[in-house]
Amino acid sequence: MADYIDLNGAEQQFGDTEAQREVRANDRQYVFHSWSAQGAINPLPIAKGEGVRFWDYDGTEYLDFSSQLVNLNLGHQHPGLVQAIQEQAGRLATIQPAMANDVRGELAKRIVEHSFEGARSVFFTNGGADAIEYAVRMARHHTGRQKVLSRYRSYHGSTGTAITLTGEPRRWANGTLDAGVVHFIGPYPYRSAFYAETPEQESERALAHLRQTIELEGPDTIAAIILESVTGTNGILIPPPGYLAGVRALCDEFGIMLVCDEVMAGFGRTGEWFAYQAFGVNPDLVTFAKGVNSGYVPLGGVVISEAIHATFEQRAFPGGLTYSGHPLACAAGVATFDIFEEEGILERVRDLGERVVRPRLEAMAAKHPAVGEVRGTGLFWAIELVKDPATREPLIPFNAAGEAAAPFNAVVAACKAAGLWPFAAGNRLQVAPPLIISEDDLIAGLEIIDAALDVADGYVTA
Amino acid sequence: MADYIDLNGAEQQFGDTEAQREVRANDRQYVFHSWSAQGAINPLPIAKGEGVRFWDYDGTEYLDFSSQLVNLNLGHQHPGLVQAIQEQAGRLATIQPAMANDVRGELAKRIVEHSFEGARSVFFTNGGADAIEYAVRMARHHTGRQKVLSRYRSYHGSTGTAITLTGEPRRWANGTLDAGVVHFIGPYPYRSAFYAETPEQESERALAHLRQTIELEGPDTIAAIILESVTGTNGILIPPPGYLAGVRALCDEFGIMLVCDEVMAGFGRTGEWFAYQAFGVNPDLVTFAKGVNSGYVPLGGVVISEAIHATFEQRAFPGGLTYSGHPLACAAGVATFDIFEEEGILERVRDLGERVVRPRLEAMAAKHPAVGEVRGTGLFWAIELVKDPATREPLIPFNAAGEAAAPFNAVVAACKAAGLWPFAAGNRLQVAPPLIISEDDLIAGLEIIDAALDVADGYVTA
Repeated sequence: MADYIDLNGAEQQFGDTEAQREVRANDRQYVFHSWSAQGAINPLPIAKGEGVRFWDYDGTEYLDFSSQLVNLNLGHQHPGLVQAIQEQAGRLATIQPAMANDVRGELAKRIVEHSFEGARSVFFTNGGADAIEYAVRMARHHTGRQKVLSRYRSYHGSTGTAITLTGEPRRWANGTLDAGVVHFIGPYPYRSAFYAETPEQESERALAHLRQTIELEGPDTIAAIILESVTGTNGILIPPPGYLAGVRALCDEFGIMLVCDEVMAGFGRTGEWFAYQAFGVNPDLVTFAKGVNSGYVPLGGVVISEAIHATFEQRAFPGGLTYSGHPLACAAGVATFDIFEEEGILERVRDLGERVVRPRLEAMAAKHPAVGEVRGTGLFWAIELVKDPATREPLIPFNAAGEAAAPFNAVVAACKAAGLWPFAAGNRLQVAPPLIISEDDLIAGLEIIDAALDVADGYVTA
Repeated sequence: MADYIDLNGAEQQFGDTEAQREVRANDRQYVFHSWSAQGAINPLPIAKGEGVRFWDYDGTEYLDFSSQLVNLNLGHQHPGLVQAIQEQAGRLATIQPAMANDVRGELAKRIVEHSFEGARSVFFTNGGADAIEYAVRMARHHTGRQKVLSRYRSYHGSTGTAITLTGEPRRWANGTLDAGVVHFIGPYPYRSAFYAETPEQESERALAHLRQTIELEGPDTIAAIILESVTGTNGILIPPPGYLAGVRALCDEFGIMLVCDEVMAGFGRTGEWFAYQAFGVNPDLVTFAKGVNSGYVPLGGVVISEAIHATFEQRAFPGGLTYSGHPLACAAGVATFDIFEEEGILERVRDLGERVVRPRLEAMAAKHPAVGEVRGTGLFWAIELVKDPATREPLIPFNAAGEAAAPFNAVVAACKAAGLWPFAAGNRLQVAPPLIISEDDLIAGLEIIDAALDVADGYVTA
């Protein structure tokens, strides 16, 4: 049996060093990579992916605890997604956005029906960044206001407005590309900026800080507050009790639109269709991408409230794109809804999260001095590593690189050496495997992490 | 035999009014459309596309002279593209951009080899707008300068920086989202802003205007000049003799990067791989999308010079996206190169453009008083309609809508009634059929336009 299929459609066995050499050579010569110094990287050539695993050309197997870039919610090569793409390619690969198209309308309908009370329509984009761009544009035109508030410790994408909204180091080198953005500080109980001693107090004080920011910026100048319902790459920060509802109340008080960024957390990652649903909050706009079709075809979008839709009933929305509502992408989205239902994805995510992940991570926290805190929900968890559990000093400094990041890199290397591809961010190992992962694979991966944490413990100085 | 395949994979005949009703109902209820007042549109439900034609549910057939949004260069359901997508979906639908991937590297290699002297690598995006965003970012970081010059009568996309660079009415409602953009006026011999009497004089004076703009803005503050090598939606404006080379010389003189936007003109539309190749000019950055894979899977990108690539060898590029170099999209791109070679696309575009389109459009210009000018190259032409051929007053005012646009809309309606879907822009019928169009279909479409121009003649007041 073949290990993988090569570029010419031929069946191949692992260990073809010539194939690996050629893939690597083309990559190094011709492909410019995201977020990288091109001379400082050596991308791993991947020959195959299946379910929760992928393989390089040597046949080295990795258990994917990162779901690629936290998009591969249904794993590699899910037969239902592959079939949906192949069938749609055969019937109508594409049609321009000004037409009405069956699969585009069907996906929009399902998304609206699974999103929030008062949701009306979906504007489809190619990914998360442009979803953010257009959500902000809608909020600005709907309110007639220009400013948008977003949080530090957030990632909202990399195009002009999206990267300015982003509240982490990837923004820094880009300066301020959208002059209407203001950042504020969100709740983070483990490292409270508000001297809070309980999660409830953290919520209360973070809301007071947000209220003050609104008042000082001028409520009538603020179009929207945008936040990741559950913060993703920047720490799997779950809103403490009452926080999201409090933000909603502030938005209502001041006529500000609430934009929930669900690009990473949406479509089952937290055990809900959308992460905000666990908090009883209705946003005005929701951005999504990644999990909507597991990234098998580029797709993102904005779910729009009745009121905002109504603003653009008789007035043109000033934005658009060639591939809005791309049929091939939408077909994989419709299949995603079918598969979620058939395989009971949301139920199993909740079950595995509470029954398997939580107790095991809590046991690691108790066992390893390098673990400062574990937190999360569903299949979306962070293990925050510290140098000193008493002071909570991070294992490596904020935004560390090179030698300063060596202790954390050693932990990551230990995971990879044991066959686990982790989601590594800052001083955190994050746990975000495909949602179809079996209990056995999940446990096996967590055990690899448990062992790798011994490496982290070696750096604890307390 | 079935007319089309429905959403459930069932074979259907045209005339199913219930299916059409449902597609339309879902669209109207749930899909938010680009650039539109949602209550003022009634998108046509499309049941099928094949080659240069598409059909609604009644079986009404349209000859596509717009290639959808000028992306469908190889027509609907090209077997080679469909097969490439189906095969890639079966072997590896997606892998994250930080890995090396065979088909991504192969496509990058082919694009570099077919682009410009000194091209080094490709940064892949999801479409044209984000290609522009990242090209500008590269130019800014490479030069350490912030300003970007772009032309009026241009379209560069709709995200924050891209819509600000855009030099036509779709920008207006968006204000200035990127404060570093300055617009200048390009050559347009038929409506010269420079009182020029020949194309050569237009070039000379447009270059003098650009030089003055550079000097008055401050050469050391300008990172890039960005232009569509051949202006697309805003008029199929071919650079007059010496213009592009002159822009290149100004860029060299002042250390400014030349960005050629080939999103619409690239990949064969003008009979070249990239439109700038007809003018002997080497840009520093090239943006592409649409034709790279006919839009079967969302894809765009930036071709990067050696010098700019070198800037990011040891310094991180501050940008990226989840779907950069998406394998499914790249597979359709590699197939595009194969099909172009096998079917001799560039040769036939040049042949059909000069042998069939040019003489027929010139004959229309001679025959119809409403035709002010015809211009173009390859399968990329504009028929500019006027109210008065002597004064060159446009058939409808600039940016006309509603009643003011009625004369032009009547011409478009005449085309559609005769089974032709035109590319309508401003006061122009533009000709941009799929590049695989047969000579017979091309002639048939041009004859429909010829007849529709009688309607335009009825509005000539001279």
